[in-house]
Amino acid sequence: MKALVYRGPGKSALEERPKPEPTASTDAVVRITKTTICGTDLHILKGDVRSCAPGRILGHEGVGVVDSIGAAVTSFRPGDHVIVSCISSCGKCEYCRRGMYSHCVNGGWILGNTIDGTQAEYVRIPFADTSLYHVPAGTEEEALVMLSDILPTGFECGVLNGKVQPGSTVAIVGAGPIGLAVLLTAQFYSPAEIIMIDLDDNRLEVAKLFGATTVINNQNGGAVDTIMKMTSNRGVDTAIEAVGVPASFVTCEDIVAPGGTIANIGVHGVKADLHLERLWNRNITIATRLVDTATTPMLLKTVVAHKVDPGRLITHRFKLSEITAAYETFGHAAKTKALKVIIEACSDTS
Amino acid sequence: MKALVYRGPGKSALEERPKPEPTASTDAVVRITKTTICGTDLHILKGDVRSCAPGRILGHEGVGVVDSIGAAVTSFRPGDHVIVSCISSCGKCEYCRRGMYSHCVNGGWILGNTIDGTQAEYVRIPFADTSLYHVPAGTEEEALVMLSDILPTGFECGVLNGKVQPGSTVAIVGAGPIGLAVLLTAQFYSPAEIIMIDLDDNRLEVAKLFGATTVINNQNGGAVDTIMKMTSNRGVDTAIEAVGVPASFVTCEDIVAPGGTIANIGVHGVKADLHLERLWNRNITIATRLVDTATTPMLLKTVVAHKVDPGRLITHRFKLSEITAAYETFGHAAKTKALKVIIEACSDTS
Amino acid sequence: MKALVYRGPGKSALEERPKPEPTASTDAVVRITKTTICGTDLHILKGDVRSCAPGRILGHEGVGVVDSIGAAVTSFRPGDHVIVSCISSCGKCEYCRRGMYSHCVNGGWILGNTIDGTQAEYVRIPFADTSLYHVPAGTEEEALVMLSDILPTGFECGVLNGKVQPGSTVAIVGAGPIGLAVLLTAQFYSPAEIIMIDLDDNRLEVAKLFGATTVINNQNGGAVDTIMKMTSNRGVDTAIEAVGVPASFVTCEDIVAPGGTIANIGVHGVKADLHLERLWNRNITIATRLVDTATTPMLLKTVVAHKVDPGRLITHRFKLSEITAAYETFGHAAKTKALKVIIEACSDTS
Amino acid sequence: MKALVYRGPGKSALEERPKPEPTASTDAVVRITKTTICGTDLHILKGDVRSCAPGRILGHEGVGVVDSIGAAVTSFRPGDHVIVSCISSCGKCEYCRRGMYSHCVNGGWILGNTIDGTQAEYVRIPFADTSLYHVPAGTEEEALVMLSDILPTGFECGVLNGKVQPGSTVAIVGAGPIGLAVLLTAQFYSPAEIIMIDLDDNRLEVAKLFGATTVINNQNGGAVDTIMKMTSNRGVDTAIEAVGVPASFVTCEDIVAPGGTIANIGVHGVKADLHLERLWNRNITIATRLVDTATTPMLLKTVVAHKVDPGRLITHRFKLSEITAAYETFGHAAKTKALKVIIEACSDTS
Repeated sequence: MKALVYRGPGKSALEERPKPEPTASTDAVVRITKTTICGTDLHILKGDVRSCAPGRILGHEGVGVVDSIGAAVTSFRPGDHVIVSCISSCGKCEYCRRGMYSHCVNGGWILGNTIDGTQAEYVRIPFADTSLYHVPAGTEEEALVMLSDILPTGFECGVLNGKVQPGSTVAIVGAGPIGLAVLLTAQFYSPAEIIMIDLDDNRLEVAKLFGATTVINNQNGGAVDTIMKMTSNRGVDTAIEAVGVPASFVTCEDIVAPGGTIANIGVHGVKADLHLERLWNRNITIATRLVDTATTPMLLKTVVAHKVDPGRLITHRFKLSEITAAYETFGHAAKTKALKVIIEACSDTS
Repeated sequence: MKALVYRGPGKSALEERPKPEPTASTDAVVRITKTTICGTDLHILKGDVRSCAPGRILGHEGVGVVDSIGAAVTSFRPGDHVIVSCISSCGKCEYCRRGMYSHCVNGGWILGNTIDGTQAEYVRIPFADTSLYHVPAGTEEEALVMLSDILPTGFECGVLNGKVQPGSTVAIVGAGPIGLAVLLTAQFYSPAEIIMIDLDDNRLEVAKLFGATTVINNQNGGAVDTIMKMTSNRGVDTAIEAVGVPASFVTCEDIVAPGGTIANIGVHGVKADLHLERLWNRNITIATRLVDTATTPMLLKTVVAHKVDPGRLITHRFKLSEITAAYETFGHAAKTKALKVIIEACSDTS
Repeated sequence: MKALVYRGPGKSALEERPKPEPTASTDAVVRITKTTICGTDLHILKGDVRSCAPGRILGHEGVGVVDSIGAAVTSFRPGDHVIVSCISSCGKCEYCRRGMYSHCVNGGWILGNTIDGTQAEYVRIPFADTSLYHVPAGTEEEALVMLSDILPTGFECGVLNGKVQPGSTVAIVGAGPIGLAVLLTAQFYSPAEIIMIDLDDNRLEVAKLFGATTVINNQNGGAVDTIMKMTSNRGVDTAIEAVGVPASFVTCEDIVAPGGTIANIGVHGVKADLHLERLWNRNITIATRLVDTATTPMLLKTVVAHKVDPGRLITHRFKLSEITAAYETFGHAAKTKALKVIIEACSDTS
Repeated sequence: MKALVYRGPGKSALEERPKPEPTASTDAVVRITKTTICGTDLHILKGDVRSCAPGRILGHEGVGVVDSIGAAVTSFRPGDHVIVSCISSCGKCEYCRRGMYSHCVNGGWILGNTIDGTQAEYVRIPFADTSLYHVPAGTEEEALVMLSDILPTGFECGVLNGKVQPGSTVAIVGAGPIGLAVLLTAQFYSPAEIIMIDLDDNRLEVAKLFGATTVINNQNGGAVDTIMKMTSNRGVDTAIEAVGVPASFVTCEDIVAPGGTIANIGVHGVKADLHLERLWNRNITIATRLVDTATTPMLLKTVVAHKVDPGRLITHRFKLSEITAAYETFGHAAKTKALKVIIEACSDTS
């Protein structure tokens, strides 16, 4: 089969690899129909993710069709149309029993990291019963690719950890795909204001279309002042970091109201300053989280009920044979205006 | 009346001052029978608290007897035996209505800060109906002085914000009076382990008597390693910062388990490093809080029911005329082994 | 001034009464511009509410302008445009401090019950600082009359107590004004399904317009079967009783899913059967509540942000001089299709 | 092997049955060292539990040693010392993923009900990885038999559902084994008062020893009056039904304070009166629950840390050959003063 293989910092190649088979009785093999690229994949290609060794097939998102199953799999059969979760969950360990699948001691984020991933025609999924989800009847396949990672990430790490409430004021720092996924799912809770901050006018334009009530281009650094003025110097109830650099985290510290919450989503490479000299008496909460995908069933219900359309995040479409071009497009988003790119792996879903 | 007056950095004096009267209709004047000294008072004396101007009577803790009331006070009468809350709460503003009295826009921490305080024979208490508490029958007056500030601070900022649970593992960094108040009130929730970390063997000895299951003297810096070994490299469910310096906050970052909570109580003068490069994907929560004293009624019930004896925090007793000696004793706690010192202001409670 | 006075079972009259004055220092007198009629007012007229004695001015809802204030009122001044809360909250008692204003030991539901109410040109409001709300700039006055009672009742007793969640399935038994208020505010949380059950086709038609995903006329009693079929025999996550009779409560018992919640809003005159022989092992929660109006500030923000338009509940408008006709219209809702009726008391808001 | 077999209403016999083997790959067979009898077993013997057919081996509690495992079991090996949960949880279904194992669509309460149980030398346990727990080093085996059912039932259905808090007032109606398990675990949260109500002086005597602050013998029906007097006519924060008859549930309705909680544990055979005409406006919560055993890991930690000694519930000990006598003793508790009886099945734990 064809698969995109990581070949060390800066290098990857679409190669021919053997089709995987179930190795454990709890495995399933899924024929990938559609996959996508995550910002994390770019980090791997830069060599930033040490756990991912050269030779690894990339990708942790996708929708497809079950091809074969191990003897202990009971919830899926060959032919079932499924969503692959970016998090593999054994369902048995202490963390899984607490709903904290991200820290599954037997799984977690392993796809396209420590085991082969989804940017291929087939992928082996461990703990299939607790790591795959049935595609609901009548839903659009490519929109559901967003359920693998980006939508639960925005919802769990941003919206739930940020405690978004009816009537509340929310600021999202970063209008990339993940910030926009927060924006889409924050609206489940009817906040009064959603302020979007970025450096890219195009992304802010998209944010407006997606429901932001205010957008701020912070090129010249005035975002904190603007927000404090807007809120009568009180700050926002929820500040969500969706970039992954110290400056944007500190922006969140600067704009959070007393009693408010900072939810961090960004993948950080270095430490940030925590201004406890200002925050120690502000009654704030800071929350970090690797997505657990524990809310995938809930999110699927909202998609079926048309409460959110995650397909709005998709800007470009490619074939698997064009995956190098897909990475180019996704990697130069400022120029290409790419948000999420769909890669069609196997065309036939039957 | 006699009162301890702040006279600028490093200076204070026991002076004669006019007895206060109710100025607003919601005021009460309380004759102080017993008061105490807080670490914050030492900060003021060092000149670290800019909001507190020279000429201010110090102190924000105390028990006493209502001397006179304004026309609008309905819950207290002259002669009532009362606890003074360190937080003045108007009961009307948005923050008070949310139970976040610390941020009352008309009050908050003002006693012994922006208005005259309790280290005096009399004190004027604004918003008396919502800032005083009746002394329950059959309780010990001096133990209740701990209800003004230190017990609710330990409980709200440490135990509640730290989400202490039956069977959980708790580490408290700092075995000073506030860390010990956390230790006492954490036991309301029956955690399996309470690990106490300090540099002072005497305080750790006290911690053992108060219920710590493990004590660690971190003089040589091995606390993090010890705790990680104790917890099979998992870390603690709750890490509580009760010192107020960057190093102890970072210790909390180092020992918190995935899914765990860091509760900050310490008053910080400078920023700390937040190691987001390690914590972004650990599903942790960090909480800060200035005490709201919203749990004072609950704490009073636990005292009445003998679930906690806050009087155990008291090590020394002085007369108001000896308050300079009381500050000396409290300010050199390593030598004097002082925890909380009681200062008797007016002897007669009738 | 003109006022509608209760004169014993079945009797009321628009009478001339002296204009009220502040009697306590925490009182305000409000000139009512718009008021409305509640189902509870009909109960009073039937003689069902013993606490309400003949001679009482009716009404507990309204918007108006502050006319005069007592000496201790600090948050409002004459001329302020205000919403009257149906619940008077002293802000000081144990229940008020817990946010449970409905059980205020000095207030609670007293307006138009144990003290004179709002169906008059003027009304005296006790505890004005904690029982009135400022009308936000740019909002529609008559829509805000819904904030006095019906919107917070639907939201607090139905939606919050019912734990409505994104993607969840909600059934509302009763499509009268209160059921429709639940319907409007349930959508703050983006449930997947909102099923409305009633006996009146007109109300169900309105429910559809207001966002119900399914409406069921239960004239022939098939509602339970229909819902169980719709939910694959699982039942609904949230069942809300908005009628106040045993049969509709039992319907909720019949349709609630394992792990689900029944929220009772209805005012019940007799007991209901609780089928513990079926429910003891179903992990369900039942919640009752008299509205606290603790969420009024939150609801005001959602109105300002156009997340809900409570004005949609208004079907008829009258002058105070026509209030008898207003009661006729409201009291024969099946015929008149009335939901909420607005009564203009004083026309000038300046 | 020897096993106690249900033979229809009123009949059971200790019979020779074939030793079970794992039938599914997720099964384990456990050699039972100690088991016990539950009130539910008496219900089965009366013929009240229709799902349990004649021929069934009884019992759903026990501790033992893993004898053999299916191919897919990964967390346990032959020779492991284990606690059997009364609830079998597949770990995969919607309910299991929500922590609501009691409603597992593939399991739930099946042991000694729809499949053979633990009152035997060996038992087959489905979904072993998610239905067994390792016996912690240094714990007493017979005390851990209480972890199969009674301790989590008291804790989850009574204490957690009842929202017991520091300083709160709790009433437990029924001082049988389950009420006493509530009493033991309620103390994890340091309530101020725990009032125990029963008709049997011996049990109330035990309740006092176990930590009840007040005991009331309700033979003459004065319990409600006594409690209302004790609480200044306010009622209790938490009322827990631990009997399973309408009268004791109504007692809970009579004594619950505004804002309070009724937690039902009792297995009810008939409906109860829910006095909504008094409760609709009292802001109360009623919760029912079949134990999920989701807190077993937490409870094990409290046992290891000596925060609770469930062995205190054990009053009598028998051999498996004497199980008929054990049933006699347990079934006539008023006379024998039995709480929980331990039955030793296989003596050797090696």
